[in-house]
Amino acid sequence: MPVYSAPTKDTQFILHDVLKVTEASTPGYDELEKAFTGAILEEAGKISSEVLHPLNTVGDQEGCRLENGVVYTPTGFKEAFEQVKDGGWTGLDMPEQYGGQNMPYVLGTAVGEYFSAANQAFVMYQGLTHGASAAILAHGTDAQKDTYLPKMISCEWTGTMNLTEPHCGTDLGLMRTKAEPQEDGSYKVSGQKIFISAGDHDMSDNVIHLVLAKIPGGPDGIKGVSLFIVPKFTLNEDGTPGARNGVSVGNIEKKMGIHGNSTCVMNYDEATGYLLGDAHKGMRAMFTMMNEARLGVGMQGVSQAEAAYQNAVEYAKDRLQGRDVTGVKNPDGPADPLIVHPDIRRSLMDQKSFVEGGRAFLLWGSTLIDQAHRDKNTDADGLVSLLTPVIKGFLSDEGYDMTVKAQQVFGGHGYIEEHGMSQYTRDARIAQIYEGANGVQALDLVGRKLAVDGGKYVMAFFELVKNFCKENTDLSEDFTKSFIAPLKAASKDLQAASMYFMQNGMKNPNNALSGSYDFMHMFGHVCLGLMWAQMGKAAQEALDAGASDAAFYETKIATGRYYMARRLPATKLHLARIETGADTVMALDAANF
Amino acid sequence: MPVYSAPTKDTQFILHDVLKVTEASTPGYDELEKAFTGAILEEAGKISSEVLHPLNTVGDQEGCRLENGVVYTPTGFKEAFEQVKDGGWTGLDMPEQYGGQNMPYVLGTAVGEYFSAANQAFVMYQGLTHGASAAILAHGTDAQKDTYLPKMISCEWTGTMNLTEPHCGTDLGLMRTKAEPQEDGSYKVSGQKIFISAGDHDMSDNVIHLVLAKIPGGPDGIKGVSLFIVPKFTLNEDGTPGARNGVSVGNIEKKMGIHGNSTCVMNYDEATGYLLGDAHKGMRAMFTMMNEARLGVGMQGVSQAEAAYQNAVEYAKDRLQGRDVTGVKNPDGPADPLIVHPDIRRSLMDQKSFVEGGRAFLLWGSTLIDQAHRDKNTDADGLVSLLTPVIKGFLSDEGYDMTVKAQQVFGGHGYIEEHGMSQYTRDARIAQIYEGANGVQALDLVGRKLAVDGGKYVMAFFELVKNFCKENTDLSEDFTKSFIAPLKAASKDLQAASMYFMQNGMKNPNNALSGSYDFMHMFGHVCLGLMWAQMGKAAQEALDAGASDAAFYETKIATGRYYMARRLPATKLHLARIETGADTVMALDAANF
Repeated sequence: MPVYSAPTKDTQFILHDVLKVTEASTPGYDELEKAFTGAILEEAGKISSEVLHPLNTVGDQEGCRLENGVVYTPTGFKEAFEQVKDGGWTGLDMPEQYGGQNMPYVLGTAVGEYFSAANQAFVMYQGLTHGASAAILAHGTDAQKDTYLPKMISCEWTGTMNLTEPHCGTDLGLMRTKAEPQEDGSYKVSGQKIFISAGDHDMSDNVIHLVLAKIPGGPDGIKGVSLFIVPKFTLNEDGTPGARNGVSVGNIEKKMGIHGNSTCVMNYDEATGYLLGDAHKGMRAMFTMMNEARLGVGMQGVSQAEAAYQNAVEYAKDRLQGRDVTGVKNPDGPADPLIVHPDIRRSLMDQKSFVEGGRAFLLWGSTLIDQAHRDKNTDADGLVSLLTPVIKGFLSDEGYDMTVKAQQVFGGHGYIEEHGMSQYTRDARIAQIYEGANGVQALDLVGRKLAVDGGKYVMAFFELVKNFCKENTDLSEDFTKSFIAPLKAASKDLQAASMYFMQNGMKNPNNALSGSYDFMHMFGHVCLGLMWAQMGKAAQEALDAGASDAAFYETKIATGRYYMARRLPATKLHLARIETGADTVMALDAANF
Repeated sequence: MPVYSAPTKDTQFILHDVLKVTEASTPGYDELEKAFTGAILEEAGKISSEVLHPLNTVGDQEGCRLENGVVYTPTGFKEAFEQVKDGGWTGLDMPEQYGGQNMPYVLGTAVGEYFSAANQAFVMYQGLTHGASAAILAHGTDAQKDTYLPKMISCEWTGTMNLTEPHCGTDLGLMRTKAEPQEDGSYKVSGQKIFISAGDHDMSDNVIHLVLAKIPGGPDGIKGVSLFIVPKFTLNEDGTPGARNGVSVGNIEKKMGIHGNSTCVMNYDEATGYLLGDAHKGMRAMFTMMNEARLGVGMQGVSQAEAAYQNAVEYAKDRLQGRDVTGVKNPDGPADPLIVHPDIRRSLMDQKSFVEGGRAFLLWGSTLIDQAHRDKNTDADGLVSLLTPVIKGFLSDEGYDMTVKAQQVFGGHGYIEEHGMSQYTRDARIAQIYEGANGVQALDLVGRKLAVDGGKYVMAFFELVKNFCKENTDLSEDFTKSFIAPLKAASKDLQAASMYFMQNGMKNPNNALSGSYDFMHMFGHVCLGLMWAQMGKAAQEALDAGASDAAFYETKIATGRYYMARRLPATKLHLARIETGADTVMALDAANF
């Protein structure tokens, strides 16, 4: 049976020692006092370990089933969902007006990581509801907000996002789902949507589908896509669920992982829908939520890696196999624990330094989202928009790799389902794919985000790194050597790659796009390098101030040193690849593959 | 439904244009004429595509089941097994004396790749039989050989290898299974073995288990382990299967992949066993087959990557999504095929350059095994022993990564089981784990193989690379720039890493072991770089000689250029990591993970 315990101390360290959230001027941040966030995190950790985590294996083994048009979730999900509902967790960062708690988004991210680590498939029912609520909040009329938000924020009704169709995922301009305007101002929505997470289930009284569709006669392609609210049950006059709408589940997909979440084929057959936002501006409406949604997927990468890591550590301490070559460590036992072996250490340090760095990156990104939304800070908005594909792509890729490394620590026991390590990899895998496959993230980063406002935000990022290095160059000789120097070098590599794109992407855009994936990873490493430098500094300050738990802070510094020494130099390889341009990548005729 | 077609032309290119097998002096190689190997490969390809491949999904979906102590394989396996049996494929490289065809091992590898690509779980029944036969051939008495080999080589009886126990896998010295000597010279074997591939099934008349166990009173630890033949049915006087032996299936493991193979918990309860080879020399007996067994697992990595790649290419050509940024390629369609996009190209080129380079590495390694066995060439034996952990570890790691990349090309369609791309990753995953987890391969490489005979074989490898570079430095300016220069640089990195280990491993062996995994990968890249340089040269020679299929050879050169430019520079990153030594890897107390 896998273990999971929420790393509340690590989260607190980032919130308070590194990001110093209560010192920020962002509205609502003054509430984030240490004791308060500590209490929230402890409570979230408790639910994660005690309620959600025990159902993770159950969900994987049972999956969801469709019987006579009704979707049933795995044993125990319904009861657990009630508990999460009762806790008001979905509305943590939603307006009080609609029953939310109006907390900053950063706290939602902190909590979300635990929930997701404990049971990714389960928490997606709630996560999709949160996303759909955010869309209605941003684009709905007052009447729509009043009608849907209180029920969705309480999770009495859940939400979904319907984008993909069988023949199009990334290229939504090819969409075929139609929305015919009706005389009463509503629409009749018809078409098929696939891969709809939490598409239907037995845990809520209604499901509010947000559906992208084309209004006939509108502009061609992506510019003619509109967003609609299509409830599973249309509402009675009094707002209660009434007649069944023309939407049904065609199938539940058999997937590699996240079995506990019902991924549905949804069939719309003249279903009554209501325009959300402006006609033909559906993609814009989706885009406004994209930073949050994609950050949430990057978070899944970190969360699965964290959960898998915790189990790998337990196993490595417990399993006796072989002897420490530098001297027996467990003389009374038949062998030493796995954790004495350097190659096991390498794997665990890769994992540890990634999840802790990734967590900091997620929380930093969340503070930028809060600044963008709560402060209307356009610089923060621009920066987080630039970082979003990195957060999504890099953290989900690395997160997946780390679950594979954690599984590997178990040897053959990792391959059988009994220990749950296979599930972590199978569940983590989806984060690299949905919400824009990672290749599309790389394209978004290099093909779109880099050049926004003449490169203003990427310059701001470099400035930020540069300033950090300049301000902290005299902290200590060791800090300069272990943290500042590698960060500078990596940032220089990233700048060189940007420069290469500028100089060579003009002649041939494929020179830039052939290096986009490498660039995304390179950027991710620099971000984690920056996070580790900040954490290293904060930990050193805590030690200098005589913090009682010295081992905690010393471990932070040692883990950061590992990242800077062993992981960050990957930027050089990425740069070398980027600088080879498109020639070798595009050399073959398609027929010769 | 996934596709698979055996890449016979590629195999022929390696056998005849690169390795020039018929020119080799190794006994039996003169028979490997182009037309002959072509006929064998075509036939093997046909069985792979038509018989084995269609059952791959079936095996994954149905799995094996245990009912009343009897193991049933998936629908169709039994009939397919008959066909493979009838074809005499298991005995391809076995002595004629026992019904084999006495072909070189290299041909077995070439065929094995196709079978494994078509249906890894299925072909393991046969592969384990081959392995067990090889052990009996190497260590059995004449009577044992006469009794078991004809039946096993014909696959009327299948074989298994029983090493792992619940509490020990890598560290077999901890083994608890006992073999009590009996008056008639036989033994009573008792204990539990786990993770026994093809442990039992319904496709053969008998299962011949090779079981590692300890004879009471023998030396402690690994030096007291002996190898036993334990048939499922003990044999009658006339050699036919008789009474059921004291061995039974405790369970079939639920695994991440290779569902079609019955991975069994085997319980031995005073089962009658016969010593194979010398008492207490069981590990040595296992080791003699290890190079072949491990090469076979590396082959699984390549084979799954090849199969997944073929499907990714099909999908990338077929799926219309987005437009080529350099100009529309499919003006009559609603969008261009995925394959126009540089990031898809990057992924496909990673896959293509790996599988083709990996195939060459496997076949080269197999010729070394042939030289070792058929020529009694100790230099070849030493070199292939050095390369074995690289072949196993690097090719299975990379092979797995490539299946993940192939799956990614499918976007969401890769995550659902329908397209079969998930199965390739789930099946490929095991190769990183069994037959010595890859961390153990790295340990074997750096902790044992490097230093054998004073580093004689690693020096021989460097010499081989150096000579190739020297001999081919004037081939053409382009060849020197695209192939020789990167190969030289990578080999230099590998030498620097070896040097680092020598200089720093003495003070502290952890300085070497902390870099062992990086070293294994670095070594793998250099080997594939060498393979690509050899293939590039052979392709250029074919073009210069006016070969009719110019596109084939030009594609080889272009693919090689990609590997040299984009993949091979990874050696620099590995070296940088290695040179940081053990400090950051071993910094934490175990309690602080």
